Amino acid sequence: MITSNQNSKIKLVRALLGRAKERREAGVFVAEGVRLVEEAVNANWKFRFALYDETLSERGRSQVESLRAAGVDVEEVSASVMKSISETETPQGILAVLESTNLPIPRSANFILIPDQIRDPGNLGTLLRSAAAAGVAAVLIPPETTDAFAPKVLRSGMGAHFRLPICSMSWDEIEAASKGFQVYVADMEGRSCWETDLRTPVVLIIGNEAEGASESARKLADGSVSIPMSGETESLNAGAAGSVLMFEVMRQRTKMEN
Amino acid sequence: MITSNQNSKIKLVRALLGRAKERREAGVFVAEGVRLVEEAVNANWKFRFALYDETLSERGRSQVESLRAAGVDVEEVSASVMKSISETETPQGILAVLESTNLPIPRSANFILIPDQIRDPGNLGTLLRSAAAAGVAAVLIPPETTDAFAPKVLRSGMGAHFRLPICSMSWDEIEAASKGFQVYVADMEGRSCWETDLRTPVVLIIGNEAEGASESARKLADGSVSIPMSGETESLNAGAAGSVLMFEVMRQRTKMEN
Repeated sequence: MITSNQNSKIKLVRALLGRAKERREAGVFVAEGVRLVEEAVNANWKFRFALYDETLSERGRSQVESLRAAGVDVEEVSASVMKSISETETPQGILAVLESTNLPIPRSANFILIPDQIRDPGNLGTLLRSAAAAGVAAVLIPPETTDAFAPKVLRSGMGAHFRLPICSMSWDEIEAASKGFQVYVADMEGRSCWETDLRTPVVLIIGNEAEGASESARKLADGSVSIPMSGETESLNAGAAGSVLMFEVMRQRTKMEN
Repeated sequence: MITSNQNSKIKLVRALLGRAKERREAGVFVAEGVRLVEEAVNANWKFRFALYDETLSERGRSQVESLRAAGVDVEEVSASVMKSISETETPQGILAVLESTNLPIPRSANFILIPDQIRDPGNLGTLLRSAAAAGVAAVLIPPETTDAFAPKVLRSGMGAHFRLPICSMSWDEIEAASKGFQVYVADMEGRSCWETDLRTPVVLIIGNEAEGASESARKLADGSVSIPMSGETESLNAGAAGSVLMFEVMRQRTKMEN
């Protein structure tokens, strides 16, 4: 059992919970809690190692058993060490360090999301969670957006990270990946999303709320789409706006109209 | 200039930033920052008093001038006192204590939102902000939902509080207010929102993500609506789900179809 905060695994986890740079250099990230670990197991994700403590639930203990059976390095830590590396107020007693492998972008992809300059981890997680539910095939993360594998993004993503290709790219790489797609940027001044045909292969760019879409995003875009609003409201939360637009794409494609 | 943390206004603000009970008993709430104060001014909201410090921007200073001209009690406080009553990491140097007056529910209301058991203040604020943009006429807050006038709800509401009637009600009062409306609860097992006619007067109930809709909500509902999802995703963030459904109501009512 690991009881020291100076243990090398504990020190690694603590570094990974901090800056994106640490995660990139180590090529791993942290998933905390029974649900996220379960999603990683279900997705056959590659584990570096996992840690648990005595407070772990029954459901979590059976996870530990299956991880061990699958040959994953699983170690028990003291409750106080677990607390010191937990990001949540009520730790669930399990945490995994997972390999940063990019899921491949399917060749048949016809719906791509780009969260542009999204800085709030909760908003980015909400966008990823909605993307997984709205049939998005891949998410491209430009350099200015917050790291998609930060702990809070994973928590609000609720497992989307294990179902959806999420690729960090330069704008040049994004441009190359967008070939053959209609690229739309969400913008108040754009054409109503209800009057825009979103059934063709689409790249949807959701900008930062305060500043709107970036220069690079506007350069790449073929056009802009808006969510019509009533009254004096000028904008929506980025997670909400992106969700409304993604499900409008899905609605048009399922072709069930009232 | 107020320089003491023991000043009665400072003590009141500190109490108001805490528990909902304090806000209810005092009949006031706190709006912090240039933007929220501006929205309150534009809405002709009733001020109890306002406080500012030397760090206030040009735009904020002109607010102070117009508040003074309108007879509002405005006092300068020292930067350290302001910091002690600020909820934000980068205080903007202005804060107002506002009267808890309910805007009246319009008689012509044909779209009502009920955030049911929503506990996360950010999610509730997102719902209110989207509601103001999607043509919701009033928001009814049942007893189990977090206080809509908590500081974080105000911040993420981005001014929706000053444009939208937001009424705390018991479920009996909610039932009475829902007479003549079709009441729909958002539920994964419900009928697709794209196949449900939402053009009649509608009450939309958005439940808590973890537990779904409450017993009281289900009893009140005439039916349930779902957002069709692809893949294995089981649910959306409550703010995102509510926004998708509210804009679907708006889409159907504007009757522009692809």
